[in-house]
Amino acid sequence: MSAPDGSATEADQIAALGVAAGHIARLVEAGFDVAITHGNGPQVGNLLVKNEIAAGIVPPVSLDWCGANTQGTVGFVLQNALAREFDRHGVSRPTAALVTRTLVDAADPAFENPDKPVGRFRMKDEAQPLIDAGQQWRDFGDRGWRRVVPSPKPVRVLDASTGRQLLDLGYVVILSGGGGIPVVEQPSGLAGVEAVIDKDRAAAILAAELGADVLVIATDVPAAVIGFGTPEARALGHVSLAEMRELAAAGHFGAGSMGPKVEAACAFVAGGGHASVITSLEKLGEVFTSPLGAVGTVITMAGPPEPAGGAAAGANGR
Amino acid sequence: MSAPDGSATEADQIAALGVAAGHIARLVEAGFDVAITHGNGPQVGNLLVKNEIAAGIVPPVSLDWCGANTQGTVGFVLQNALAREFDRHGVSRPTAALVTRTLVDAADPAFENPDKPVGRFRMKDEAQPLIDAGQQWRDFGDRGWRRVVPSPKPVRVLDASTGRQLLDLGYVVILSGGGGIPVVEQPSGLAGVEAVIDKDRAAAILAAELGADVLVIATDVPAAVIGFGTPEARALGHVSLAEMRELAAAGHFGAGSMGPKVEAACAFVAGGGHASVITSLEKLGEVFTSPLGAVGTVITMAGPPEPAGGAAAGANGR
Repeated sequence: MSAPDGSATEADQIAALGVAAGHIARLVEAGFDVAITHGNGPQVGNLLVKNEIAAGIVPPVSLDWCGANTQGTVGFVLQNALAREFDRHGVSRPTAALVTRTLVDAADPAFENPDKPVGRFRMKDEAQPLIDAGQQWRDFGDRGWRRVVPSPKPVRVLDASTGRQLLDLGYVVILSGGGGIPVVEQPSGLAGVEAVIDKDRAAAILAAELGADVLVIATDVPAAVIGFGTPEARALGHVSLAEMRELAAAGHFGAGSMGPKVEAACAFVAGGGHASVITSLEKLGEVFTSPLGAVGTVITMAGPPEPAGGAAAGANGR
Repeated sequence: MSAPDGSATEADQIAALGVAAGHIARLVEAGFDVAITHGNGPQVGNLLVKNEIAAGIVPPVSLDWCGANTQGTVGFVLQNALAREFDRHGVSRPTAALVTRTLVDAADPAFENPDKPVGRFRMKDEAQPLIDAGQQWRDFGDRGWRRVVPSPKPVRVLDASTGRQLLDLGYVVILSGGGGIPVVEQPSGLAGVEAVIDKDRAAAILAAELGADVLVIATDVPAAVIGFGTPEARALGHVSLAEMRELAAAGHFGAGSMGPKVEAACAFVAGGGHASVITSLEKLGEVFTSPLGAVGTVITMAGPPEPAGGAAAGANGR
């Protein structure tokens, strides 16, 4: 499952991860094997600010290093929180947090067209020295300028097989945080690269590589909604892959928020996964104790079974 | 084994870890199972500077978070470097880098008497606002003032058992970087704590928990030296635990450098480990292909066998 980004302060992040751990513990208590991945946008944002401000005194580090930094912090804080919640739920399961690299293609067009905004909005004159130093920044109008970086497609989560082995040993595994640390294959071997990876896209690949049955994308709304902001707004329950793709193509899901989650959820099912679920962390414990589709948005290849009448008609008519 | 701290810039660290990986690969090629731990002093120093400088804009994070940050970066860079060197040496072994917590005692006296210097030297007037904010700083005379933090004794490397399981699966494992992320047991559960852990002490505990045969402490000199800086200076080869402890008690090893390494090396053997070795990274490949004690300083419970003549004398006289 993929948890939403934590807040920006250390105490906020510890609190947010504590809440997430409580919900995850309910799944573990119910007997599921769980692999956890997570975002890192706010944390990387903080690290980039520190890099910028201290650049005259301490050498800045690149985006892959920032991502690796956040895997360490989120990993150990979540391990602590899970241990506490497992105790509370009477669950006895070991946890592990893996530093995780994700392979991207050095020829990915994203490297030529950086378009993922990271870090703070700045005034143009503040951004100019960074632009002069080789960074790409974009004008976002009234909100100011913001750095844009490449977001190449994840090709493979290099350390997924280690996660799989630990799951087989009974571990609850935290891995591929922030989509994984981006690395490329160079003639001299693997090397980190200045990029960010979409965490939802990476989660879909990770889930497939782990051989997961279900990919749960935990966000801050209980379900994906069509007609969002209109009187016809409707939360989606259990839908087929084909229907979900039609809804996505019709533009029902925001490009910066629900869109990538729907794309990832569809990709996992299209690749052979049994089901993808999009719901809130709070609903996580209910997803699997309720009839499929009653809680959250659930995507399967076939969609919901025909209702009783329809099934009978089918039996007659086909 | 324990590698020395890398240098401070990203490129320097990548280069230093690349060199280390080459030497480690020789051990792996020779058929040894290898667990790797490492220091993080310069890296944490950099992070603390960034914390200080950016404190007005981005909330600073604590020392445990800095430690976790460095486990991420050193972990993935070393994994990349090992993959390259394994290729070069024709070795096929998976690697894993574990986020690793080390338990310390909340009642450790170090929390009352912080004495481990971290970060930059500053002028007193620069340090004063940080002292006013609750940090402890110490006057180091001409060099300036420096922050001092608690360095409690490591009690247990909490994630060592995960490392052991991965070793059993054939992995080369990187873990417990910087001595491990310090955590304490609180009534509410495990929590990170503002402290640093001596990497050599932690390495001795880690090696015991992994059930390692040999603890190698790789540093920047080929052996421990007695009478250092005197005409009688002599590099130590194979010595018994009792002899090494006598030499340590006589003050032969510097408190800030070789002393903790000798203490850790002795502790591992005293706890049942077969041998501890102190040598340089460059000599690593030779330690195990040479007669024991010919390369590096080797500590075993019994020390070297009697030389041929002495053994004969022993056979006659005892």
